[in-house]
Amino acid sequence: MPTRNATAVWQGTFKEGTGKLSYGSFEQNYSAPSRFEDGAGTNPEELLGAAHAGCYAMALNLTLERNGTPAKRVSTTAKVHLTKGEAGFAISKIDLDVEAEVPGIDNSKFQEMAEATKTGCIVSRALSAVPMTVNAKLV
Amino acid sequence: MPTRNATAVWQGTFKEGTGKLSYGSFEQNYSAPSRFEDGAGTNPEELLGAAHAGCYAMALNLTLERNGTPAKRVSTTAKVHLTKGEAGFAISKIDLDVEAEVPGIDNSKFQEMAEATKTGCIVSRALSAVPMTVNAKLV
Repeated sequence: MPTRNATAVWQGTFKEGTGKLSYGSFEQNYSAPSRFEDGAGTNPEELLGAAHAGCYAMALNLTLERNGTPAKRVSTTAKVHLTKGEAGFAISKIDLDVEAEVPGIDNSKFQEMAEATKTGCIVSRALSAVPMTVNAKLV
Repeated sequence: MPTRNATAVWQGTFKEGTGKLSYGSFEQNYSAPSRFEDGAGTNPEELLGAAHAGCYAMALNLTLERNGTPAKRVSTTAKVHLTKGEAGFAISKIDLDVEAEVPGIDNSKFQEMAEATKTGCIVSRALSAVPMTVNAKLV
């Protein structure tokens, strides 16, 4: 199986320095303002959210397909909460908002699969230390 | 503190469908081939690696600064291993390769800080379910 590499290079102080992220064919900048304020650039939390949303949507889609009720579309938004507690900053929670078009499925079966994917998808398992919620609806 | 959102939309079957990831001002495509083979596009594992490398480099830089030995440069590559085991696919390990230019620090203190950052940085704590290694060197 593939091993995926990503590189970050940081130069300068924490407050005024800049980071450059390279992964696949992508390059993006980040900084203290882009992470802890509203500065331009990316930040680890939105990248983590992208990894999680991407994995969840793909996994739920596969589960629905295997159930004989393939989805027309699965949309997942991961909301990654960065909060400051007694032990410093932490990713304190991830909320997954899911919408799916799934012809012919009943809602209870869909909810069951959405919950199972929350704990079972590859990235959810890697992030099992983080509390997660899922709010799934059929559209 | 900011909450960071990222959205994935998947359409089509697992094998032939496509996903679109949106986060911040970025949009990227992914698919089963870009995740499990060598197809064009991103995948959750390299995004997770970017989040982890970005967080680690920033955190180690800050730790060195607080020690009175600021780095000129900290480079971190996260290697995210996706493997197939008995319970299916999993992120089985993350290796962090670190290079840093740090005038005036001795190597044992540097190694201590590199190890502490491996367990202590924000994303490392979120990923504490995943075994990690760090290979750090002064350059």
